[in-house]
Amino acid sequence: MSIVVVGSVAFDSLRTPYGVRERVLGGAATYFSLSASYFAEVRVVGVVGRDFTPEHEAVMKNRGVDTRGIQHVEGKTFFWKGEYGENLNEVKTLQTDLNVFAAFQPQLPADYLNSEFLFLANIDPLLQSRVRDAMPQAKLVGGDTMNYWINDHRQNLRQTLKRVDVLLINDTEAKLLAGDNSLPRAARKVLALGPKALVIKHGEYGATIFFRDGQFAGGHHPFRAPALPLEEVRDPTGAGDSFAGGFMGYIASQGEVTRNVLKHAMFYGSVMGSFAVEQFGTERLQSLTREEIEGRFNTFRELTHLD
Amino acid sequence: MSIVVVGSVAFDSLRTPYGVRERVLGGAATYFSLSASYFAEVRVVGVVGRDFTPEHEAVMKNRGVDTRGIQHVEGKTFFWKGEYGENLNEVKTLQTDLNVFAAFQPQLPADYLNSEFLFLANIDPLLQSRVRDAMPQAKLVGGDTMNYWINDHRQNLRQTLKRVDVLLINDTEAKLLAGDNSLPRAARKVLALGPKALVIKHGEYGATIFFRDGQFAGGHHPFRAPALPLEEVRDPTGAGDSFAGGFMGYIASQGEVTRNVLKHAMFYGSVMGSFAVEQFGTERLQSLTREEIEGRFNTFRELTHLD
Repeated sequence: MSIVVVGSVAFDSLRTPYGVRERVLGGAATYFSLSASYFAEVRVVGVVGRDFTPEHEAVMKNRGVDTRGIQHVEGKTFFWKGEYGENLNEVKTLQTDLNVFAAFQPQLPADYLNSEFLFLANIDPLLQSRVRDAMPQAKLVGGDTMNYWINDHRQNLRQTLKRVDVLLINDTEAKLLAGDNSLPRAARKVLALGPKALVIKHGEYGATIFFRDGQFAGGHHPFRAPALPLEEVRDPTGAGDSFAGGFMGYIASQGEVTRNVLKHAMFYGSVMGSFAVEQFGTERLQSLTREEIEGRFNTFRELTHLD
Repeated sequence: MSIVVVGSVAFDSLRTPYGVRERVLGGAATYFSLSASYFAEVRVVGVVGRDFTPEHEAVMKNRGVDTRGIQHVEGKTFFWKGEYGENLNEVKTLQTDLNVFAAFQPQLPADYLNSEFLFLANIDPLLQSRVRDAMPQAKLVGGDTMNYWINDHRQNLRQTLKRVDVLLINDTEAKLLAGDNSLPRAARKVLALGPKALVIKHGEYGATIFFRDGQFAGGHHPFRAPALPLEEVRDPTGAGDSFAGGFMGYIASQGEVTRNVLKHAMFYGSVMGSFAVEQFGTERLQSLTREEIEGRFNTFRELTHLD
C-alpha cells in the first residue's frame, strides 16, 4: 500500500544545547516521508526553490520515496531558523522565510491518485481540502494543523476536519481547537468536528489516541503509547512529523484499519519520533534498520506492559 | 503485612473550578493511610490539635487504620488553604499555618516497630531519619520530599536518602534534586544518592519508575504507568500521597519485593491517585470497593497494553 503526503520541504537552521546546524534538510513532508518509508511506499508532494539540489532530493530517493510530486520553481526553498532552550520543550523561532512555499499549489502526479492513504501535513487548510478532493477514494486520511490555522482560519479548518479520518495534534492545539482545558473533553469536542480518531501528542510523555464512538471495532476506550525516556534528545525538530510517518506508515503496511492496528501504529509512531530526536535534523531517519525499529518497539512494550 | 506512615494530618480549605470546601480533612499521612488501607494494615504517626475531633479520626478508623500514633496536643491542627486555576495543574497556596505541626516529634507506639514497611511522607528530613532509625529492620522504606527540603535542607535530605529504598517525587523535584533537566539523567543521579528505585510522577501523564542497576531481579529498564485521562478532575489535592498509598499498600500486600511487584504497584498507585482527584478532599477514598479498584486497574491495563 502507498501513502501520499503533502506538506513543507524546507531548510532548517537549528541550535540546541547539543550543537548547531545550518540549513539542513527539514520540513514536515520530509520527516514524514523518511519515517514512513520504513513501512510503506511514500509519495511526496511539495515545492522547493533553486537552492534545493539533487543531493537534497537524494536523501528521500535513497529511502525509496517517490519525489515526482516535488515541484521545482524559481526562488528559494522555505527556510526556518529555531533555537531550543535547556529543557528542549520550548522552541524560539528566530526566522521564517516562506519563500516559494508562500504560493504553494499542490500538484499530484496522476499515478499518485490511486494511493490508499493520504497525509495532510501542517499547511493551509484550503490546500489540505483541495488535495483531499483529489483523492476521494482514500482509505484513510491523516492530518495535522497548528495554532495559526486554528486561530485565524478556523472555518476553513473545520471544512478540512470533516474529511480527515485521524487528526494528529499536540495538547495545546487540542485544547485550543476545542476551547476546553480538559483533555478528554477537548478530545470529544474535536471528534465531533469530523475525525473518527484523534491522536494527541504529549511530547516526552507519549501520545494518546481517542476514538469516536462506534468507529473501529474493539471498543472506544482511549489508548496511550509511551515516549522513551531518552537519555539525550539532541534536536526535537520533526518529532511530531516523524511520529505521524511511523503511525501512517504502519497502518498502510497492514492494509486494514482496525482498532488493534491503530494501537500498534501509536507505538510505531512513538518509536519513529524517538529515533528522529536522537540526532540533528533527519540524520537518524536516513539509515535506520527494521531491526533497530523492532528493537525499540520491544523496549516500548517492556516500558509499559505488566507481564 | 503492615505499613507505618509518618507525615502531616491537616485541615485543608480548597477552591477549584468545581467548588469550594472549608477545613476538610487532609494531610499527606491521611491521604496515604486511606489509600493504602485498601491493600494492607496501616499505622499512622502524626500530630493534631484540639480542633481534631473523634469524628475526624473516625474517617481513618472506619478504614481500619491504626491511629494510636496520632498525638493530640494543645493548639490547632496544621491548616492549609489553596486554590487551583482552570487547568488544575498549578496550585496557589493562600495560607499555611503549621500550628502544632511546627514542633512535631514523631512518636511510634512500641508495637508499630515490627511493621515490615515504612513510608516517610513529606516532612523535615531530620524527622524522616529519626523514624527510619527506629525501624532498622524494615523490609522496604518509601519516602517523599519537596522543593523546600531539596533547596534549604539538602545535607539532611541526603542523609535520609541513603536509607530510603524507593523515593517518590515529581518531575520538578527530580530535576531540582539532581540539578539536571534531562529526566533519565536526573533519575540516575538521584539513584546514586541512595534509593534502589525512584518513582517520578508526571501528573496527568502518569509516572515512571527507574531502577538502580543490579537491584530487583528482572532487568533494570524503567517502567511507566499511565494516568487516566479523567473526564473531570475535581480536586487534585492528595493525588501524590494517594499514589504513594496505593503503591506501598500493594507492595505490602504481596510480601516479596520484586520488579514485577513494583510494576504492578505503579499501576495501583495510579489507580488510587485517579480516584482521589475525582472528589474533593478524601471523599472518594473513604468508600471505595475492591471491585472498583480492580475495575480501574483493568481500564489502565487496557489503556496501555497492545494485545
